[in-house]
This record gives sequence, C-alpha cells and structure tokens, in this order.
Amino acid sequence: MNNEPDTPVTVIGLGLMGQALAGAFLKAGHPTTVWNRTAAKADQLVADGARLAPTVGEAIKAGSLAIICVTDYEAVRELLGASDVELHGTTLINLTSGDSAQAREAARWAEQRGARYLDGAIMAVPPAVGTAEAVILHSGPQSDFEAHKSTLEALGTVTYLGADHGLASLYDVAGLAMMWSVLNAWLQGTAMLRTAGVDAATYAPFARQIAAGVAEWLPGYAEQIDRGSFPAEVSALETDARAMSHLIEESEAVGVNAELPRLFKAMADRAIAAGHGGEQYPVLIEEFAKPSGDA
Amino acid sequence: MNNEPDTPVTVIGLGLMGQALAGAFLKAGHPTTVWNRTAAKADQLVADGARLAPTVGEAIKAGSLAIICVTDYEAVRELLGASDVELHGTTLINLTSGDSAQAREAARWAEQRGARYLDGAIMAVPPAVGTAEAVILHSGPQSDFEAHKSTLEALGTVTYLGADHGLASLYDVAGLAMMWSVLNAWLQGTAMLRTAGVDAATYAPFARQIAAGVAEWLPGYAEQIDRGSFPAEVSALETDARAMSHLIEESEAVGVNAELPRLFKAMADRAIAAGHGGEQYPVLIEEFAKPSGDA
Repeated sequence: MNNEPDTPVTVIGLGLMGQALAGAFLKAGHPTTVWNRTAAKADQLVADGARLAPTVGEAIKAGSLAIICVTDYEAVRELLGASDVELHGTTLINLTSGDSAQAREAARWAEQRGARYLDGAIMAVPPAVGTAEAVILHSGPQSDFEAHKSTLEALGTVTYLGADHGLASLYDVAGLAMMWSVLNAWLQGTAMLRTAGVDAATYAPFARQIAAGVAEWLPGYAEQIDRGSFPAEVSALETDARAMSHLIEESEAVGVNAELPRLFKAMADRAIAAGHGGEQYPVLIEEFAKPSGDA
Repeated sequence: MNNEPDTPVTVIGLGLMGQALAGAFLKAGHPTTVWNRTAAKADQLVADGARLAPTVGEAIKAGSLAIICVTDYEAVRELLGASDVELHGTTLINLTSGDSAQAREAARWAEQRGARYLDGAIMAVPPAVGTAEAVILHSGPQSDFEAHKSTLEALGTVTYLGADHGLASLYDVAGLAMMWSVLNAWLQGTAMLRTAGVDAATYAPFARQIAAGVAEWLPGYAEQIDRGSFPAEVSALETDARAMSHLIEESEAVGVNAELPRLFKAMADRAIAAGHGGEQYPVLIEEFAKPSGDA
C-alpha cells in the first residue's frame, strides 16, 4: 500500500467536518476526490484543488481509501448502497457519528459488499482537524488501519483501539462523559465560590490541579477493578459518602444547584447498602455497570 | 514570630487525622503538646516525644499556635469554651470538617474570645500528612497565616485562599466534587468499555488523558464566566446536548447505568430552553448557580 502524500483519497459528505477532513488531505498533498449531495458545498475545496465527483460511485472509484462522514448511519447505507457503487477493493473509513451497535452492523454490511471497513470517531471540532490536537479513534481490522495510518495522519493524531468495530464510538462517548464531568464539577465549584465573591479565573487553576491530580490515580484504581478487589487503601466509601453529605449541605446552604452532588451520594449510598461501605471508591463500578431502573 | 523548628505547637483532637498532624510536627522537630478526650490515643505520640496536657486549657497555654481537629464545630466550641481555657494570644487553626457558615461563625466566636483564627481544610488522607502531597487550605487574616506558614509547612503543602474564613471549606468541597466527578466519569466509561471486553487498565490511560486535557481548558473557560459572555468559539451547547443523547442511548444499549448522562442532558436542556443553545458550554454556570427545586 502506497502511503506517500500522493495517495489518492475520497471524502464523502461535506458538512463542516467533511470539509475539514477534505481540506486537511489537500493540505497534506493528497489528490482528493469529494462528493456531497449539495455540490455547492465543494466549491472552496475545488478551488483548493479537490476534484468533485458527479456520483458517489465515481467518488469511490477515484482511489482505494474512502472516508465517509455524513448525518447518520442510515445515510451511509443509502449512499453506499446505490446500484452504481462498487465497494470491492475499497477501504472505507466511516467517521459518521453513531453508536457501537451501528458501527458493528455497518461493518458487516460493508464487508458483505467487499469493502474493508474501519469505524472511527473524531474527538475534535472541525477547525482542529489537520492538527495534532484532533484525536481520531479507529476500530476494526488492525492491518487495514496500519495500511492507511500514514495517510490518515494528515487528519490529526490517529489512534487504533482494537478489532471490535464498536470500540471507536464507545471510547468517543466515554471520553465525552469525562469531558462533561470535568466541566460540570468545575461549574459546581465555580458557582459555590462565586457566592463568596471568588471569581471564576481565581478558582479555575485550583480545579485544574485537582482534575489533573485525580486523573493520575486512574491507572492504579483500574487495577482494583480488574482484580475485582477493592481494599480501602486510601479511604473507605462510607467516608466519601459523609463528605458528599457536606457537599450537598454546602451547595444548598449557599443556594446553588445540588443535583450533581445528590446523584453522587445516591450512587454511593446504594453501594454502601449493598455492603461496600468499607471498600474503596472504585467498588462503585458495580453500580455503574448496572442498568438504571428509571430509564 | 519565631518559625524555627523549635516553635512549640499544640494539637487538640487525636483522631487518625489529629495523630497524623501531631506526628508530622514532632517529626519536624517542634515541641508538641497534645490533648485528647481519650488520653490513650496519645500513647504513641508521647512515646515519640509529645507532651500530653491534662486539660484543653493547659494544652492551649503550652504555646501560641494551636491546631484543633475534632468531630465537628460543636465539639470545637464545647472544648475551647471551657472555663479554664484562655484563648487570648493564641492563634487557633481549626482543621475540623465543617461548612463555610460554621467556619465564619467559629471565627467570630474565637475572635470575641481574643484568639486569632484561621479556618482550614485538609485535602489528604492521614497517611499523606507531613508530605508535599497533603494540600492544606487556609482562610482568614493573611498576616496570621504568614506568621505561622513555615511552621504549618511541616504538615504538607499549605495554601492561603483569602480573608473570608469560609473559603477553606468551600474550596475543599469544590475539590471533592471534582474528584468524584473524574472518578465517576471514569467508572461510567469503564463500565461501557467492559461490555466490549476492554479491561479497566486498558481504558484508564485514555480517561486520564481526556481528564488532564479538559482540565487545561478551565482557565480559558473561566474568562467567559467572568465576562458573562459565552460565544460558541469551540462548539455550541446544542451540539453537546445531541452528543449527550448519544451517550445516554449508548449507555442504555450496552446495559450500564445512565443516570449521570441523563443529569448532564437535563441540565443542558434547561439552559437550551432558556435560550442558550447557541452559546458555549460554560453558559451552564447559570443552571449550576440556581438552587435546585427538588431539594
């Protein structure tokens, strides 16, 4: 497989993200063929050197590597299922947003049609695409990833997660859960500190330090989960639960939202009721791993 | 004020934390006087060179710096309000767990009795006390903190937050909220990935990287809050809300708890309903700053 900058690539779907992907390939010197339902969205890319294909089938024919980034997985199948589309011999990288089940199903569908298939997720906003800051996750057969890795590096920091096609979307949403959690905890603290006249800029470095510090504990705590053994080496869950009560009471006393602290406490209380009060925090994995009743 | 290692200190309350505090002072060479309701808890400290005072009043008389770390603020007042206790000329540092209102009230109470008063919070477990890892927060008059800073450094990394005595406990619970948030988000992701056969140790470095990366955004996002202006420079809240739906659906599809993602979405939806869908994530401060209705 030729991964020199002259490796031709195809980008199907030219929303903001698709345009950013095609633009990054162009900037890296790849002959880039694009297609979009509304052809006008290709104007700037064509001005920058892209070739606009008249049909999806023609776009796929232009090379052996095709990236698709459209609204949803239904659109992927509709576009690539057209009678003039020949997927045999193409490596298809699907960067459309979806869930792990859709990714696994799309892999079966594409492989039945002769394509090599990788599912992917872009952990970045369009303006970051083409920089190292854009983390792009891939899952599917490792040999297909390796064959195109250097071409894909035009898009950002590319990562391979494993053979299960569902992994990219699982890591993606898990990463987003971490992002919103850090932001929400910071907002909770900021709201509390503002009641004492502390501005957000004064509090932020403290929050940053705690988040980065706790992040360092995760690999060690992960070992407890993999062993299924949670000795209270640092502190016991019931001690955390008491401190959670302080957080709830303080939030209420200063008049800020207490829903997040109350959820933390409710989950800890359930684990304590199940007999885990003397164990360490990661024992909560048992609560997180259970479906919630109030769906 | 003499801050040499021979500065005498008093520690009142010898629970696990009080014992750790007194032990750290002894190790740093300070003549250390201790008191505890159950005197036997001082045995090891006395063997290590501490002096056990027969009463709280005698313990306070032993030097000009007294640390108190007991069950709650009621116990602080009960012990220090005894008729034989003379607080005049003493700098009292209260490391007892409590909320910001209790800290402010205790400051008034102690100052009326002639003490200089700092409130503090220990962001560490007892075994970490005496190492740089133990972060100890202080709030109250800056001059009183500065006068004893080098003595207090025997306990860990000491930090001064501001004149408002309530700040130490506010920062403390805000920091805990960040700690539990990072841990919970990691548990959410770990639970999801385990359904695809990914073990906790494999996922943890990814979660660590996201948490540390998002932590870096906080100072910049804080500027938006302080300006009260939330332009969608990176992405709009309504885009986040759509991705939150993916997280909820994926959590439900793989059979793990979805309460945390649902709370994130509920708060974002309220901000969107209030007209903030086109603004950036930190606009959620307005939701966090409101008391929650379901207290």
